[in-house]
Amino acid sequence: MRNGHIVLMNLRQLGRMGDAAKEFLAPFGELYNKQTMSREEFAAIAPDVDILVSGSNLRIGKSELDNYPKLRMIANFGVGYDGYDLEEVNRRKLFLTHTPDVLTDDVADLAVGLMFAAARRIALSDAFVRNGGWAKLETMPIGTRVSGQRIGIAGLGRIGSAIARRAEALGMQITYLDRRAAEKNWARAKSMIELARASDFLVLAMNATPENRHIVNAEVLKALGPHGFLINIARGVLVDTEALIAALQSGTIAGAGLDVFENEPEIDSRFFKLTNVVLSPHQGPATVQTRRDIAQLVAENIRRVLAGEAPLTPVPGTRTA
Amino acid sequence: MRNGHIVLMNLRQLGRMGDAAKEFLAPFGELYNKQTMSREEFAAIAPDVDILVSGSNLRIGKSELDNYPKLRMIANFGVGYDGYDLEEVNRRKLFLTHTPDVLTDDVADLAVGLMFAAARRIALSDAFVRNGGWAKLETMPIGTRVSGQRIGIAGLGRIGSAIARRAEALGMQITYLDRRAAEKNWARAKSMIELARASDFLVLAMNATPENRHIVNAEVLKALGPHGFLINIARGVLVDTEALIAALQSGTIAGAGLDVFENEPEIDSRFFKLTNVVLSPHQGPATVQTRRDIAQLVAENIRRVLAGEAPLTPVPGTRTA
Repeated sequence: MRNGHIVLMNLRQLGRMGDAAKEFLAPFGELYNKQTMSREEFAAIAPDVDILVSGSNLRIGKSELDNYPKLRMIANFGVGYDGYDLEEVNRRKLFLTHTPDVLTDDVADLAVGLMFAAARRIALSDAFVRNGGWAKLETMPIGTRVSGQRIGIAGLGRIGSAIARRAEALGMQITYLDRRAAEKNWARAKSMIELARASDFLVLAMNATPENRHIVNAEVLKALGPHGFLINIARGVLVDTEALIAALQSGTIAGAGLDVFENEPEIDSRFFKLTNVVLSPHQGPATVQTRRDIAQLVAENIRRVLAGEAPLTPVPGTRTA
Repeated sequence: MRNGHIVLMNLRQLGRMGDAAKEFLAPFGELYNKQTMSREEFAAIAPDVDILVSGSNLRIGKSELDNYPKLRMIANFGVGYDGYDLEEVNRRKLFLTHTPDVLTDDVADLAVGLMFAAARRIALSDAFVRNGGWAKLETMPIGTRVSGQRIGIAGLGRIGSAIARRAEALGMQITYLDRRAAEKNWARAKSMIELARASDFLVLAMNATPENRHIVNAEVLKALGPHGFLINIARGVLVDTEALIAALQSGTIAGAGLDVFENEPEIDSRFFKLTNVVLSPHQGPATVQTRRDIAQLVAENIRRVLAGEAPLTPVPGTRTA
């Protein structure tokens, strides 16, 4: 295996990912972290970067790629790849890999965790106790049952299916929206609005594509209704933020649990004033165990490409050899 | 059915329970709420009270019972009955009923919710986002995986079993501590310390009895270890609060999710400064759906006793007819 490659770590606001990743990537060359470099330092190394380790949320398009004339590979630290211009990636014959499977359980866990947190008001309760509300015998708004309620899952891929398995154990009635999947035991919705109507908990676990931008709009939220909760562990762009904030403010829906947002991490500050939403800083796969698994898979993809082997987990539709 | 009885609502810090309860109890007589009455008002009606609707956390012993010379029945609003002096209740030939089963799912849900909230730092994250930490690219401490980890369940009654079923769906390895239950598929621990050693998540779902006061002590917490979490949805008295606070402060255990506390609601204020604990104000069964179910069962027990029928759910070891 050749060595001496320059690998640029480009994991904005995910610096904590860096430690696990660095351990596994160190064998492959010099590591740099763009987030800790000055413009001048970056300009000095960019022309020699041949591998980029990045998060999809950075939105790497043509103009960003122009910085790296020697780039051979982008190893995405995560499963979603909506931040990349696949056409441009393929035009440049770049390898683009991602990390499916290893984070499925963690993201599905967080979806369920946010469902409980939103319905049972766990974050609000914690603040209530810490602020002395309980001791003063103030009343907390009462919660909503999760077990046995209706869940609607948008996107029945790996993560959506893992959420469904957890929901089954909670005795929930499952409806799903997915063009390809066909599950006999669960009800299938024909549209997002039909899914919302069939849901006490509407959980987004679908890919972000240009077509489903803002697929959860005012009309869908109205269909979800005043007893319904929206859970989003997929991508912020799936939801019309203006419509969601209005729905939370007016009680058009009961609440939300959100791990992803439009324009994260600079999210709409009106969220901060709402007590019926649980806000999570995009940490679906943010566990010690999974960070290591992701870093290991990123490293294995890099090792293979450098050794002239096929990458283990190329992004669908991109170079495989 | 006779009518005109006085039912004293005695649901301290659970005033919100009152609304559902009142609706179902109104047919049985005049309703009073001790918490909203002056000492004088209370003294005027106490001698005529014949039914008490209460929460077990009030600790109703002989001296409290002496206030109600005509008392015939205590209908406990909840499942735990450690707050009553059963000997005294039986000596007075009182009916004492509680509300098992109807709250099982909610309490088991909250146990799982607190497990996710503690391990995935959901309450801390929410505060982090609201305080602007995310936008400023500050780092959040990374979480711990829940799926597939080891859970130890102390008490395999209705609620413990419901927690175990949820844990199975999360692919967790189950160990339990229970003198009576025997489950073939799960490992059985012989002591609390053995259970703690076998657990990443030690979940308390047992009754509070004089013997198991402070059964979770410093030694047990040490056995749980620096990657372990304590979840308590049962009773605060099961845990030595001093030992728990020391263990959370020193990192002897990783964290905790607590719905119950010694001396609640005036809980130890040192908890408020800890970031590795999720604090919940005793709301295991606090959902709209379950409050109604509990209130309905309380009312049905009262209806039956007033009609001379056997109560539906007497506390074990108390009068059944």
